Amino acid sequence: MSPNHLFQYSVVSALMDGVAETGITLLELLAYGDHGLGTFRRMVGEMIILDGVIYDMKPDGSVVALDSDACAKQSAPFAMITHFEPTATALKQIPSKDSLTETLSQLLPGTKNHYLAYRVEGIFKSVTVRTVGGQQSPGESLAELGKRQASHTFNDIEGTIIGFRSPAFMQGISVAGDHLHFLAANRESGGHVLALEGDGDLEINAARIAAFNLQFPSEDNAFNQAKLVRDDEGIAAVEG
Amino acid sequence: MSPNHLFQYSVVSALMDGVAETGITLLELLAYGDHGLGTFRRMVGEMIILDGVIYDMKPDGSVVALDSDACAKQSAPFAMITHFEPTATALKQIPSKDSLTETLSQLLPGTKNHYLAYRVEGIFKSVTVRTVGGQQSPGESLAELGKRQASHTFNDIEGTIIGFRSPAFMQGISVAGDHLHFLAANRESGGHVLALEGDGDLEINAARIAAFNLQFPSEDNAFNQAKLVRDDEGIAAVEG
Repeated sequence: MSPNHLFQYSVVSALMDGVAETGITLLELLAYGDHGLGTFRRMVGEMIILDGVIYDMKPDGSVVALDSDACAKQSAPFAMITHFEPTATALKQIPSKDSLTETLSQLLPGTKNHYLAYRVEGIFKSVTVRTVGGQQSPGESLAELGKRQASHTFNDIEGTIIGFRSPAFMQGISVAGDHLHFLAANRESGGHVLALEGDGDLEINAARIAAFNLQFPSEDNAFNQAKLVRDDEGIAAVEG
Repeated sequence: MSPNHLFQYSVVSALMDGVAETGITLLELLAYGDHGLGTFRRMVGEMIILDGVIYDMKPDGSVVALDSDACAKQSAPFAMITHFEPTATALKQIPSKDSLTETLSQLLPGTKNHYLAYRVEGIFKSVTVRTVGGQQSPGESLAELGKRQASHTFNDIEGTIIGFRSPAFMQGISVAGDHLHFLAANRESGGHVLALEGDGDLEINAARIAAFNLQFPSEDNAFNQAKLVRDDEGIAAVEG
């Protein structure tokens, strides 16, 4: 796949409907890029893909880098990945998640109706993350899981954010707006970013996505029968 | 692109918002398949792609097959195309458009949340089509154009339907449900199908789409600034 083309497996509405029993193998997923995020089977933990390595950020707060054996065995019910080639870069103070949104819009103007991929690196005064704890029964919805998600705040931590912005009209297929996962530089903690505060300048690299490639779960009856109705409030509650 | 992967340029909501001044060249489009439909610059006429040839079905009722010179010069603000390889086939009486929808669902069960591509061939007692007449001013919306579309009914006519089914959750990106264009066997008439009645058995070939590839207009300010709000009623009125 060409640089800055985005590959996505399944749709966010399917996670909302609890479709998380099968998925794409992680090995197959890695063929589509080196920069990404997602979740694992039964929504246990958060996935971040950094420089071509998939990290499993588990609900207990630990992080594991997955080797090719693990990638051949494990699957993802939802993931986004690209061969990331930044086209714009900046060193900026980022006091909040909203400020990151604004900075990206300035860095890549005229992209309201486009996907963006980006990476933010440096030292953070604080990063608050959540990690999804996994389904307690098959088909449990992401909204239900969100009610018992673990959240952690890390202070004075160095690390990397991998993010995607999705246009508003793709809500339900992707997560409209900014969607960020964080991994600490020591690779020992991370998760889905709820809030952040940079310490000094952060390095931001970003690119507009030229094409969006959506792969549908093929032999998954739960997907075939899911309602897949767009749920703006539900998505905002668990993915905002 | 692999067989039965669907390539789409831009989104239907952009046509609803009147974004039709630029687009993908037809030559570039043909690289993605041999079976498709769409419209032309400023929404003048209906496009059908049959066995790798693009036909321009004009508002005055005439049809022109576009050669490679024409394909290099002309562009499409919206189009869908695939390398079609049918995986299911049937000979069936098709008394109406609804009956075609039902037949396809029986032919490819478990595909409610998937795209389908199909082709229907044979003799029709009647086919009613419309052809969009083109924008009278830049940015005029497809809903406005729909109010003055020309519709024609052809009786006892042999021809081919090229169609795509899009899942409900892709409404606004594509046209949810069935979307069909018709071309007569003598290549002299056709358009966007509003109603049909088969005469005896029609041959139906269909396949499930495994992946959806969406290319975004890149240097188009009208697209970048468009509202792109999903308009279920508007789309049903002009694309139903």
